[in-house]
Amino acid sequence: MQALPLAQVLTLSNAQIVIEAAATLAFAASGLLAAARKRLDAVGVCIVSGLAAFGGGTLRDVLLDRRPFFWVEHAGWLWALLALCVAAMLFLRTRHFAATERAMQWPDAFGLGLFAASGTQIALQADMPAVVAVLMGTMTAVFGGVLRDIVCNEIPRAFSDHQPYAVCAFIGAWVVVLGHRLAMDDWLGMVAGASTAVLLRAVALWTGWTLPAWHTGDERRS
Amino acid sequence: MQALPLAQVLTLSNAQIVIEAAATLAFAASGLLAAARKRLDAVGVCIVSGLAAFGGGTLRDVLLDRRPFFWVEHAGWLWALLALCVAAMLFLRTRHFAATERAMQWPDAFGLGLFAASGTQIALQADMPAVVAVLMGTMTAVFGGVLRDIVCNEIPRAFSDHQPYAVCAFIGAWVVVLGHRLAMDDWLGMVAGASTAVLLRAVALWTGWTLPAWHTGDERRS
Amino acid sequence: MQALPLAQVLTLSNAQIVIEAAATLAFAASGLLAAARKRLDAVGVCIVSGLAAFGGGTLRDVLLDRRPFFWVEHAGWLWALLALCVAAMLFLRTRHFAATERAMQWPDAFGLGLFAASGTQIALQADMPAVVAVLMGTMTAVFGGVLRDIVCNEIPRAFSDHQPYAVCAFIGAWVVVLGHRLAMDDWLGMVAGASTAVLLRAVALWTGWTLPAWHTGDERRS
Repeated sequence: MQALPLAQVLTLSNAQIVIEAAATLAFAASGLLAAARKRLDAVGVCIVSGLAAFGGGTLRDVLLDRRPFFWVEHAGWLWALLALCVAAMLFLRTRHFAATERAMQWPDAFGLGLFAASGTQIALQADMPAVVAVLMGTMTAVFGGVLRDIVCNEIPRAFSDHQPYAVCAFIGAWVVVLGHRLAMDDWLGMVAGASTAVLLRAVALWTGWTLPAWHTGDERRS
Repeated sequence: MQALPLAQVLTLSNAQIVIEAAATLAFAASGLLAAARKRLDAVGVCIVSGLAAFGGGTLRDVLLDRRPFFWVEHAGWLWALLALCVAAMLFLRTRHFAATERAMQWPDAFGLGLFAASGTQIALQADMPAVVAVLMGTMTAVFGGVLRDIVCNEIPRAFSDHQPYAVCAFIGAWVVVLGHRLAMDDWLGMVAGASTAVLLRAVALWTGWTLPAWHTGDERRS
Repeated sequence: MQALPLAQVLTLSNAQIVIEAAATLAFAASGLLAAARKRLDAVGVCIVSGLAAFGGGTLRDVLLDRRPFFWVEHAGWLWALLALCVAAMLFLRTRHFAATERAMQWPDAFGLGLFAASGTQIALQADMPAVVAVLMGTMTAVFGGVLRDIVCNEIPRAFSDHQPYAVCAFIGAWVVVLGHRLAMDDWLGMVAGASTAVLLRAVALWTGWTLPAWHTGDERRS
């Protein structure tokens, strides 16, 4: 990074912040809906939204021993999240849930790609091996939702619904690693990786593509 | 802190230790009862008690990257916890559970206030922004119970029972932050914050006050 | 450690790596079977296997603030895990589950002992008090399975099945501490501790020994 001109470093850093910010809202909304479906109280709604929004990145930073967290450096986001939860509790009704969830599919897909790419990039900058960086990227994108589902006492959707979700993040993360290996500019690799993940997720949503099932034997088909 | 006379620093530090110790026992008991209700074995009883007692503070310290943990610096507490669990398994019977739970409401309320205040203070000393310090304080007070409920395969009570619990800790934590802003002595701010939280919790217990429900629509009322 | 001849340090370090490697596979298989039983998809199978294999050691390292993690330093293991999961999904059928589980009991028992001993040793080297080192050792051996069960939305088996599992690790960890106190060579203490845990686990498997139940009262016996 020291070889890059300062302006570019700033731009990259700004891009990362914008990326993480845009993705955060869609993830918070997914936590909000999950909490509402479980009839959690106001505290539960806020915490589950926060976990869904910041859980993946925070876990990545704990594992990389990286501080400050996004939500410590940009503490205003905690206020934004609180405002979002209050607004939702005032105005969102059960009859809006399905529509909200559908409307959130696209920002969520963008979040998936963006978080996966930025998480991978951050791990590469911390000198992680390629496969670890990919894992960190995927974790950044997916583990907010995993923590959301664990707190809501469900098996994480990302592990059980046979829809390609983590897999899209995983492939996008490999594109970021490839860009890094080819000595691409960081921002270019991130854009390529994020686009790949978003595109794959879009195709999955459009086509209803499912992950190959584990054929555990005859009783599955009966 | 460097400006304070040494004696005061020592007193503050001692007060923090006493505070954390007093709160720990009540929280351990809540874990013990939850484990017993789920018919966990001896190992489960000890671990769930330990999680309830130390989980919140440990999570806070991991997030703040702060070492040593309370239970490493004061490892004797692990023995105390083990003794508590053995004693409970020898002498506590199901017919005592309800009475124990009622008897624990008050130490638990004190724990709530004390942990919230000390957690907030610790985060402020680590130069966290106000809203993050409040989150850390609330987390210290509440996340032991959250981990207890997750391990027992329940939706965390603090998120779902519509009783003011985390909210009391949250408001008490803001009092600590306010004291800090007004340049109060640390111990004074902590006492004020802890008292506020305990008082609010007491009022909630006396009056049966509940959190405003999320009016998710008509089907709720039917 | 500085007083030891270099050769011995290297051997000890190599032994630790072999120990952690051997244990890892059996633990991954337990995650794989748990994921298959819950009909998780390919992503879930890989993640749950990974949690079962690396979760305990990673949690220990996070608590000890120790980097790099085993799976970062030896990133090849992540590939091995992925290969294991793919192979299992191709070739393992439900009718093989019971036999696989039985076949895994012995490597799992070795894993239990080896992880407990190495975890305790690592904590002792980080100057932890004895009881904390024992806790870290037990956690290393047991918390992979705990995380596996939490993600699969079950009460952790280690806390609820009344079979001696964590207890064997716990006693083996104390043997390691005892060896350390008696100024035994590190490798000797670890071998003694691991053997104790494995032997106890073997006896438990052979005899069907169960943990003393908590006699919570009359309704238990009816």
